[in-house]
Amino acid sequence: MRVINFNAGPSGMPLSVLEKAKDEFLSYKGLGLSIIEMSHRSAEFEAIVESATSKVRKLYGFGDEYAVLYLQGGASLQFAQIPMNLSTGKVCEYIDTDTWTNKAIKEAKILGANVKVVASSESENFNHIPATTQDDFSKDADYTYICSNNTIRGTQYKEFPKSKSTLVIDSSSDLFSRPIDISNVGVFYGGVQKNAGPAGVTLVVIKKELANRVNESKVPSILRYTTQIKANSMSNTPNTFGIYMFDLMLDWVIENGGLLGMQNKNIQKAKLLYSAIDEMSEFYKGHAKVDSRSLMNVTFNLASADLESKFANEAKEAGMIGLKGHRSVGGIRASIYNAVSLDDVKTLVEYMREFARKNG
Amino acid sequence: MRVINFNAGPSGMPLSVLEKAKDEFLSYKGLGLSIIEMSHRSAEFEAIVESATSKVRKLYGFGDEYAVLYLQGGASLQFAQIPMNLSTGKVCEYIDTDTWTNKAIKEAKILGANVKVVASSESENFNHIPATTQDDFSKDADYTYICSNNTIRGTQYKEFPKSKSTLVIDSSSDLFSRPIDISNVGVFYGGVQKNAGPAGVTLVVIKKELANRVNESKVPSILRYTTQIKANSMSNTPNTFGIYMFDLMLDWVIENGGLLGMQNKNIQKAKLLYSAIDEMSEFYKGHAKVDSRSLMNVTFNLASADLESKFANEAKEAGMIGLKGHRSVGGIRASIYNAVSLDDVKTLVEYMREFARKNG
Repeated sequence: MRVINFNAGPSGMPLSVLEKAKDEFLSYKGLGLSIIEMSHRSAEFEAIVESATSKVRKLYGFGDEYAVLYLQGGASLQFAQIPMNLSTGKVCEYIDTDTWTNKAIKEAKILGANVKVVASSESENFNHIPATTQDDFSKDADYTYICSNNTIRGTQYKEFPKSKSTLVIDSSSDLFSRPIDISNVGVFYGGVQKNAGPAGVTLVVIKKELANRVNESKVPSILRYTTQIKANSMSNTPNTFGIYMFDLMLDWVIENGGLLGMQNKNIQKAKLLYSAIDEMSEFYKGHAKVDSRSLMNVTFNLASADLESKFANEAKEAGMIGLKGHRSVGGIRASIYNAVSLDDVKTLVEYMREFARKNG
Repeated sequence: MRVINFNAGPSGMPLSVLEKAKDEFLSYKGLGLSIIEMSHRSAEFEAIVESATSKVRKLYGFGDEYAVLYLQGGASLQFAQIPMNLSTGKVCEYIDTDTWTNKAIKEAKILGANVKVVASSESENFNHIPATTQDDFSKDADYTYICSNNTIRGTQYKEFPKSKSTLVIDSSSDLFSRPIDISNVGVFYGGVQKNAGPAGVTLVVIKKELANRVNESKVPSILRYTTQIKANSMSNTPNTFGIYMFDLMLDWVIENGGLLGMQNKNIQKAKLLYSAIDEMSEFYKGHAKVDSRSLMNVTFNLASADLESKFANEAKEAGMIGLKGHRSVGGIRASIYNAVSLDDVKTLVEYMREFARKNG
């Protein structure tokens, strides 16, 4: 029996995707070798990269002015690569919504970037996305950096800030979960291991002219976006099997209605879960403020850490894994990414009702 | 039918390893989820990392003074990470055996390291490993850097140089192919996609005291070895499926006699192939000098580029792929990594005889 996977990432994939990968694991397209053994320079693998790239472009609407790259090192390496490539000494604006932007700010400072934290929700325990207006931003910034969804706190931008410089968006935990406004996007990136594939592939979509900002004499070539743009992500050997799985996941996204289809389902799932929390608010305390609630990670607390442990452990026995909150904040977190079904969330809600009845 | 895979990497894996991965692809150890969906923080995945690490230690003899890390970004990122972490302003010694050391030298220079090229085989088209004596090295160097096997030229160190400072060894293309002398090793690293797994995992074995050299105020945390040592390679999400496949490959290495077993088989295979080249030296010209010949990548030329194309194309029709030389040098290259069997090489040698007879 399949467990229901509420992990924050790596996380569940649709069974149909896994079955396809399994079916062709020993011989890709009858070629007599596994995709995992195949040269990244082969025509077959290049076709997979082409296929994935054209789907990324079509789903989000990214035109030829953007490059689509498959890198390694996760968002954590991007925290460093972004200022390395894009900071020219002007102010680099960051909005701080906890851990992930915090780390990004720290790396930018180490690299000597002129960091300005434009807004933060730290004083309220990062329970919301700070509101900003156009006046908060400078026209003369190198970029404005945000994390579109905070996995740990369970907060998410409903719309992107009206910055005056180009937006850099870490979308690691809400990639391919909804349509977005790309009109001011300079960089849109994320590890794909939550909504769209396995761990080890970082999707980076970057405006080519932005990539050209890099000071080639100072930045190691492997860390320049320009290097991978020229080489179509093959300056060095990419995570071939990961890219293949990513491409299969995009097929599934498209078959299920594209970004709008994903969004509609994700809204339904989140509504169901947040409604249950609100109904049982004596027992379950939602962390995020209502207008900042994430469609991806639903975070809440019970009366004590012990009760939270009991909640997560008994859920595991009932076939639902990954409900413990991030080790840095505790509590409960249900990550309901693309591959989690409405039925999965219904099962969780039933369990929550039962658990509250028994322990309330 | 399985093809015979002579690609330089990613490259073939033993069928038994692929079959095991396929068998448990939908449900790892009956847990109801795929290993590719599993949290890197789960007890099950942590056990895989522990298992792989203890095998790496046992196979090579690395003690507790070394950390075993699973990173991303391939050797190419190590070219930058090495000087970032280990250069303190003293001379950094490099031995140049073409492309891979060349790139490493370039990155070190960009990062401001005080690079000294101690020896090079450039003047003879990199057809050998340059000889060195202890007198060529300085006691006061930060490190001495070599690439143990040059994939493109088909050259390989028989023994490591007698440097006076700690050795940094890029072993990307001969990992787990033979026992090595680790007595002066500071860093031993490589992408595992040639001999020991899929693309997207960089094995880095590093002396812990060496890692502590890093200037924390200057190097982004994700690029410091100390960060990943503290976090047991989980400072960020590692390539979980890749590490799992790597662990399966190490099981196979151990079942087949460990590093000595690999070496014996690799010597047999190489001998067979080089003997054929030497016998038919009118038709096939080996590139590497005899005493520098690689056990991993056997490089040779035919009379013309056209004939080489014909050779590779007809081999492909006969079920042998990946025989074209690296695009930077042309010619023919047969990569005969751990997973290539003696029978596979026999098949190639028979094909070579037949091809020479028909086209000679």
